[in-house]
Amino acid sequence: MNIILTLKIMGALLLFLGAAMLLPIPFSLYFDDGAAGTFTISALICATLGAALWKGIRSSTEFGTREGFAVVTFGWSFYAVFGSLPFLLSGAIPAPIDAIFETMSGFTTTGSTILTEIESLPESILLWRALTQWLGGMGIIVLSLAILPMLGVGGMQLFRAEAPGPTADRLKPRIQDTAKLLWGVYVLLTAAETVLLMLGGISFYDALCHSFATLATGGFSTKNASVASFDSAYIDWVITFFMFAAGVNFSLHYYALRGRIKDYFRNEEFLFYLALTFGVTAIICVLNQGTVYSSFWDNLRYSAFQTSSILTTTGFGTADYEGWPVLAQYLLVFLMFIGGCAGSTGGGIKVARILLLFKHAHHQLFKLIHPRAIRLVKLGNTPVDRDVMQSILGFFALFMGVFVIASFLMASTGLDLLSASGAVIATLGNIGPGLGSVGPVDNFAHVTDFGKSVLIVCMLMGRLELFTVLVLIFPTFWRK
Amino acid sequence: MNIILTLKIMGALLLFLGAAMLLPIPFSLYFDDGAAGTFTISALICATLGAALWKGIRSSTEFGTREGFAVVTFGWSFYAVFGSLPFLLSGAIPAPIDAIFETMSGFTTTGSTILTEIESLPESILLWRALTQWLGGMGIIVLSLAILPMLGVGGMQLFRAEAPGPTADRLKPRIQDTAKLLWGVYVLLTAAETVLLMLGGISFYDALCHSFATLATGGFSTKNASVASFDSAYIDWVITFFMFAAGVNFSLHYYALRGRIKDYFRNEEFLFYLALTFGVTAIICVLNQGTVYSSFWDNLRYSAFQTSSILTTTGFGTADYEGWPVLAQYLLVFLMFIGGCAGSTGGGIKVARILLLFKHAHHQLFKLIHPRAIRLVKLGNTPVDRDVMQSILGFFALFMGVFVIASFLMASTGLDLLSASGAVIATLGNIGPGLGSVGPVDNFAHVTDFGKSVLIVCMLMGRLELFTVLVLIFPTFWRK
Repeated sequence: MNIILTLKIMGALLLFLGAAMLLPIPFSLYFDDGAAGTFTISALICATLGAALWKGIRSSTEFGTREGFAVVTFGWSFYAVFGSLPFLLSGAIPAPIDAIFETMSGFTTTGSTILTEIESLPESILLWRALTQWLGGMGIIVLSLAILPMLGVGGMQLFRAEAPGPTADRLKPRIQDTAKLLWGVYVLLTAAETVLLMLGGISFYDALCHSFATLATGGFSTKNASVASFDSAYIDWVITFFMFAAGVNFSLHYYALRGRIKDYFRNEEFLFYLALTFGVTAIICVLNQGTVYSSFWDNLRYSAFQTSSILTTTGFGTADYEGWPVLAQYLLVFLMFIGGCAGSTGGGIKVARILLLFKHAHHQLFKLIHPRAIRLVKLGNTPVDRDVMQSILGFFALFMGVFVIASFLMASTGLDLLSASGAVIATLGNIGPGLGSVGPVDNFAHVTDFGKSVLIVCMLMGRLELFTVLVLIFPTFWRK
Repeated sequence: MNIILTLKIMGALLLFLGAAMLLPIPFSLYFDDGAAGTFTISALICATLGAALWKGIRSSTEFGTREGFAVVTFGWSFYAVFGSLPFLLSGAIPAPIDAIFETMSGFTTTGSTILTEIESLPESILLWRALTQWLGGMGIIVLSLAILPMLGVGGMQLFRAEAPGPTADRLKPRIQDTAKLLWGVYVLLTAAETVLLMLGGISFYDALCHSFATLATGGFSTKNASVASFDSAYIDWVITFFMFAAGVNFSLHYYALRGRIKDYFRNEEFLFYLALTFGVTAIICVLNQGTVYSSFWDNLRYSAFQTSSILTTTGFGTADYEGWPVLAQYLLVFLMFIGGCAGSTGGGIKVARILLLFKHAHHQLFKLIHPRAIRLVKLGNTPVDRDVMQSILGFFALFMGVFVIASFLMASTGLDLLSASGAVIATLGNIGPGLGSVGPVDNFAHVTDFGKSVLIVCMLMGRLELFTVLVLIFPTFWRK
C-alpha cells in the first residue's frame, strides 16, 4: 500500500474541505452570529495542511485497489476530524470526542447527535452541520455508483452505471464524468426542495439547511424539535417526498431528467422500495388510526413521514414513534435494517441486497426440489453473477457480525439491551435516532466516551459498506 | 409427490408412536396416578390408525427426495398431533392448541411450555412429556446425520457421516445402520446420566425424566422450579456436563467410544464450541462475581449451567438470568442464535454454520485485497464446496427472514417487542424459555391461540432446518 500517495490525496481533500468552510461565512456575517472568525481559522488550518501534503509530497502516481480503499476510509476519517474544527473552535461543542462524533455523523449522513440544545447555537455553525451531511451525501453517491463498484465491494458492481433499458445509453463510465452528472441531479433536487420549503413560509436559511439534510438522508435539523417545529402539513409532505427521492438510486433520477421517467418502473429495486414505503405506511396508518390519531389526514401525514424518515435512514422526526403501537414500532425497527436503495444517499443494508437475499433463499429452496434445473438469480433482467451474490451474502454476514460485536461493546458501557442495540443499528445503518435512551426524542450526549468511539467507527463502517474499512485490518493490506 | 406413499409411512410412524405410549403405563401403575387408562386408549388410537394406514394403503415403493421432505415434515406434525392425546384425554392439558403446543415443543426438543403448574400433574404424564423430547432427539440425530445430508439441506452434506481422521473408517453409510450406531451412543449417555443423577440422591423417575430432557437438549423438567428445585451443586454439574455433551456432534461421541478420543480435538466445530462455552462462562462469571453472587463456586456453577443450557438450547433453569447484568444477558441472547453443533440434538443456527459464515465473510475481505488468489474456505481440513456454502448462506438468510416475519406476527398478538422476538428465537432456535413475558421464570400460557400456532410452526421449522418445511410451499413440490 502506497501510504505516501494516500497522504498526498488527503492533501487535496483537505484543500476542498477548507474551501467548503468558507461557505458558512456569509451566513455568519448576515446573522451576525460571531462565528465568521472561527470558519476563517478552520479553513486556513485545512488549507495550510492540505497544501503542505498536496504540494510537499512527491509520489509516484501508481494508484491501485488498495490505495482506493485507503483513500476512501482515510478521506472520511480526515473529514470527521478536520471538519470538527468549527464546532471546537467556536466552543459550540467543547469536547473533541463529541465534536468528532457530530462531524462523523454529518459526513456519514447519519444524523445522530450529541447536542441537547440546538437552537442556541450560531446559525452558521448549524449551517456547517447541515453542510457536512450534504457534502457527505455527494461523496456517497460517487462512492456507491463509481468507486465501490470498481473496487468490487459488497456486490456494488451490480449498480455501476446501472442502466435500466437499452445499454447503449449508459452513464458515462469515467468517475469524473459520472460524478458531475450525478451531482447535477443532486444539486437540482436540493434547489427544488429549498424553493418548495420557502413557498411553505420558512426562511431561506432553514429551507436550505433542511434541504441539505434531506437530500443527504442525514436528518440534522436547525430546530430542537426537528421538523415537528414547523408544525405544517405542507412542509411535512414536501420533506416526505424528497426523503423518498433521496432514497432512490440517483442514476434513475438522472435518466428521468433526461425524459426516461418509465425507467423507474422498470427497476426492480425501485419497485420493491416503493411497495415497501406504501405498504408499511398503510399498515402503520391502520395501527395508529383511532389509537394515536383521530384524524385520518394527520395520521397519514405522520405515518408516511416517519416511514420514509426511517426507511431512507434520514432520521427527521415529527412524532415520537416510541409512543406508537408495538407493531408499528416493530415495523420501523425492521425498516432500520433495510435502508435506502443502492446508489442513493440512504444507509442500511440496502433494498437491493435484501431483495437479493430473499431471492437467494428462494433459489436455494427451488434447487432442493429441482436439483438439475439451471436457473440464475436475477435482479430485473440482469442475471446476478455468483461472485456478486457471494459478496452480497458476505456483506450480510459482516453486517450482522459487526452489529453483534458493537452491541456487546455498547452494552458494556452500561446501556440497556434495547438502547445498546438501538444505538448500533442507528449508527451502523446511518439512520440517526435509535431506540430506548437514544430514541427519537433523546440524543447521544449521555453515552460514554468509549461508547461514542465505538459508534464513530460504526458510522464509518456502515457508510463505507463495511468491506472498505475492514480490509484495513489485514496485515497484507499494508505491505508495499 | 407421492402423497399415498407418504401416508403409508405415517402409518408405520404412528404404530411406533403407539408402542412408545405403552412405556409410561408401568410408571402410572407404580405411582397409581390414574393415567394408565389414558395411555392405553391413546396407544390404541395410534395403533389402529397406524395399522389402517400402513396395511390399508397400497403404494408403489418409489421413494424420492420430495417424499423424503414430506415424510419428515408430516412425521413431526403427526407426532405433535397424536402425541398430544395423553395430555388431552387425561385432562392434564384441556385445550387442544395447548396440548399440541406442548407436544410439538417436546418432539422438537424445544422445551417451551404452556404449563403453569407442573408438579400436580400425574407422574406418567410428565414422563411422557420428557419422553417426547427424548424420542424427538433420536429423530433429530438421524435426521441431521443421515437424512438431511442425503436431501442436500442447508449444507448438512458437510456433516454426513463426518469422519474426522482417516476416511476408511467412516460411519456405516446406510441410514438404518447409522441410526442404530448413533442411537446406541444416545442410549448409553442417557443411562450414564440417569445413574449419575441417582447417585446424587434423586429418584429413578426424576433422574430418568431429566436425563431424557438433557440428552435431547429439550429442557422439560418434572419440577416447577426446573433443575433449581434439587438445589444441589452435584446435580447441577452433572446436568451441565451432559448438556454440553448433547450439544456435540454425536458421530464424535461414537468415535470416542471406539477409542478415538483425540478426534474431538481434531474437529474444528467442536473446538469452537468448546471455546465458546468456556469463554462465555468465564465472561459471565466475571460479570456476576460480586454483583449477583459472592461465592466464586456458586457463581461458576450457575454461570456454567446457564451458558450450557442456552448455548445447547436445552433451556433448563437454575437461575433467573433476567436479573443478571445487562452484558451477561446480552451474551446469552447472542448464544440463543448460535445453538449446538451440527449432528447434535441442539437447535439454533448451529456452531458450524456460524463458523462458516465468519469464514465466508473473512474470505470475501481477503479476495478484495488478493483478487487473483485462489483459496477455498475450509472446515478443519475439508474444503467447503461452493454449493454447500451457498446453501449455508441461504439458511442464514431464511433464518433471519423467518425470525423477522414471525416476530412481526407475535407482536401483532399484543406482546411487547422483547417478548415477541424472544418467543420467536426461543421456539425457532428450539431453546425453550425466551425473554420478557416468556422468560425463564414465565411460560407461554398467556400467548393467544394465534400466537401459539405461529410458535408451533416456528418450532417445526427450526427443528427441521427450515428448508425441509419451506419446500412444501412450492406448488411444483406437490406435482406428481
